[in-house]
Amino acid sequence: MMKKRLFTPGPISVPEDVLLEMAKPIIHHRTPEFLEIAKQVIEDLKYFFQTKNDVFIIAGSGTAAMEAAVVNVLSPGEKALVISGGKFGERFVELVKTYGAEAIIVEPGWGNPVELKNIETILKQNPDIKAVFATLVETSTGTSYDIEGLGKLISNFPETMFIVDGISGLGAVECRTDLWNIDILVSGSQKALSLPPGLSFISVSEKAWKTINNCTTPKYYLDLKKYKKAMEKFDFPFTMAVSLVCGLKKSLEKIKQQGLENLWEMHKKRAIAVRNAAIAMGLEVFSKSPSDAVTAILLPQSIDGEKFCSDMRKEFGMSVAGGQDKLKGKVIRISHFGWQDEFDTIAVIAGIEIMLKKYKHNVELGAGVREAMKVLF
Amino acid sequence: MMKKRLFTPGPISVPEDVLLEMAKPIIHHRTPEFLEIAKQVIEDLKYFFQTKNDVFIIAGSGTAAMEAAVVNVLSPGEKALVISGGKFGERFVELVKTYGAEAIIVEPGWGNPVELKNIETILKQNPDIKAVFATLVETSTGTSYDIEGLGKLISNFPETMFIVDGISGLGAVECRTDLWNIDILVSGSQKALSLPPGLSFISVSEKAWKTINNCTTPKYYLDLKKYKKAMEKFDFPFTMAVSLVCGLKKSLEKIKQQGLENLWEMHKKRAIAVRNAAIAMGLEVFSKSPSDAVTAILLPQSIDGEKFCSDMRKEFGMSVAGGQDKLKGKVIRISHFGWQDEFDTIAVIAGIEIMLKKYKHNVELGAGVREAMKVLF
Repeated sequence: MMKKRLFTPGPISVPEDVLLEMAKPIIHHRTPEFLEIAKQVIEDLKYFFQTKNDVFIIAGSGTAAMEAAVVNVLSPGEKALVISGGKFGERFVELVKTYGAEAIIVEPGWGNPVELKNIETILKQNPDIKAVFATLVETSTGTSYDIEGLGKLISNFPETMFIVDGISGLGAVECRTDLWNIDILVSGSQKALSLPPGLSFISVSEKAWKTINNCTTPKYYLDLKKYKKAMEKFDFPFTMAVSLVCGLKKSLEKIKQQGLENLWEMHKKRAIAVRNAAIAMGLEVFSKSPSDAVTAILLPQSIDGEKFCSDMRKEFGMSVAGGQDKLKGKVIRISHFGWQDEFDTIAVIAGIEIMLKKYKHNVELGAGVREAMKVLF
Repeated sequence: MMKKRLFTPGPISVPEDVLLEMAKPIIHHRTPEFLEIAKQVIEDLKYFFQTKNDVFIIAGSGTAAMEAAVVNVLSPGEKALVISGGKFGERFVELVKTYGAEAIIVEPGWGNPVELKNIETILKQNPDIKAVFATLVETSTGTSYDIEGLGKLISNFPETMFIVDGISGLGAVECRTDLWNIDILVSGSQKALSLPPGLSFISVSEKAWKTINNCTTPKYYLDLKKYKKAMEKFDFPFTMAVSLVCGLKKSLEKIKQQGLENLWEMHKKRAIAVRNAAIAMGLEVFSKSPSDAVTAILLPQSIDGEKFCSDMRKEFGMSVAGGQDKLKGKVIRISHFGWQDEFDTIAVIAGIEIMLKKYKHNVELGAGVREAMKVLF
């Protein structure tokens, strides 16, 4: 009878009406009915991405879209600059290397912002850098990067593509593809779109197409040219995950209705509430540049973070994420996206307070909740 | 108010209880709860595949799993024999060529069976053939291939891998991975498993692992070694499409309950019913080796197949598929898998009869239905 609450940075809870939308009878993917849905979804995704560029849907996890961004742009031997501040920055590094391109890796350190000056220097020293890879929100550390600043900087290098992993951030934090000069932006369904995992998205600028058309890296399922050709008829090159797309339509309708700016504001409030609550509980936010999509909170050294998360799930039905790799056991991570409201934010803070108490951490019960309430209402 | 019936060879109708299973609250993919589901699903998939080999789930369309079969086995410059009898055989050819391997293409002609003698000759002449690619059921033509015979033949060539696209056939027609010596078998969710599209599956034999471990073709999202490593803990290397996997669990439970042999028998009956009905309607089955998964029926030359399908959908709510590529406009294709029963088979035959009548084709109303009933009951 335990009520479940997901605060993991994906998958997240899906609104009941979206779940039921996906439970409707299956529509064949090559019918006028589904074509209309696809048309609407692509138009709304462009709003979600804040772009006039092409946007494609790939049946697959976010990593599939990240891989598409690499294999369609970089030919073997070409050079890329990768800003890697955590597990998902590292994924871009691995992808670039896997496909035989050269990665110049900039590591600001987990949780630290990136120095634009440093990036500029490298770009000037290496005019042959084909693309800069960055992350909007690094899920593993809860860190936001200055994508706007990077975009402005990279616009001075007309031969260099700007590629952003927006999987955890898009919809939760401000991100304006066209205004910020992002050539390729990737995202996934199981984050701010409040959908189950299974779909990923990728936007492609005019500038990027020139490179894509000349790219020699072999690809098939992730060949964006196939997606572009099919999209001329609002079709997909391979059988699309139709039920998830029906859910996506519903989810995007809601986002349009609410307005992206309001959505960003909502996430910001929740994130500030959790950050302030953490401080009131005597804890520390891990990131030096904390995002409004995911917050990583450092636990006292005496507490085993893995056990803490497991106890939260077992005793309160609340899923918060633990740390990954070098942060394993040291942090808990709380997402601010997905189907949750202000009272859920209060609930998770209350849950953490009570659990801290059980772990003999010196916390005044209600102190975090009080700080959160001040921000939320 | 029109009732919809899908007879397309994927996507198909999904049982209501499976739809509702997928509409349940989302479970995080790295929890003990989901681990239990994954464990069960993998065990049941092994039954579905009739194998003791590893079986992996990929979030993606069937083509993703086909690509995985190519990029994990063939290194650039290596030789493959591809039996290509339709659109999906051609897909294997395209994949092999895309990744720089050499394809020896055997084309028995659309709708024709493959000559084992011919395959044997080629294998003897080319001892360096790394893999033979074949299709269990070619969806574009409704043709079954002698996978058992091919498997027996290829077992005499210990250095050659046998790779089968079972996307449209698995679960609908007999296929025994281990007994038939299939090293890699791929399948998808939107066929005999009666699920929405979005998941694909791949089984890998011990023999195949040796080749996979030495394969130099770059890959990341489709790198089977990553899936194997994660599977040690019943985990997935990338965020899994959890709601579809929950549906899969339900679907596999039902299949286990029914028994695979019974499932094959059921599909056979439906297929024979439709084939006999077609003849009674004065039409011809396209394939010389018709499958029990999908039936392609040649329409009279006077009838535009595309319009015919569109009218079936508009007037009767019935989705049957038209022809692809060289069969476009010439055939209709009816699937025998998915959430349908004997009365649905009768319904689609009745629908075709009435539509043929409207198209002024000389058909005795009820003639096809009568023949079908004889087979079905």
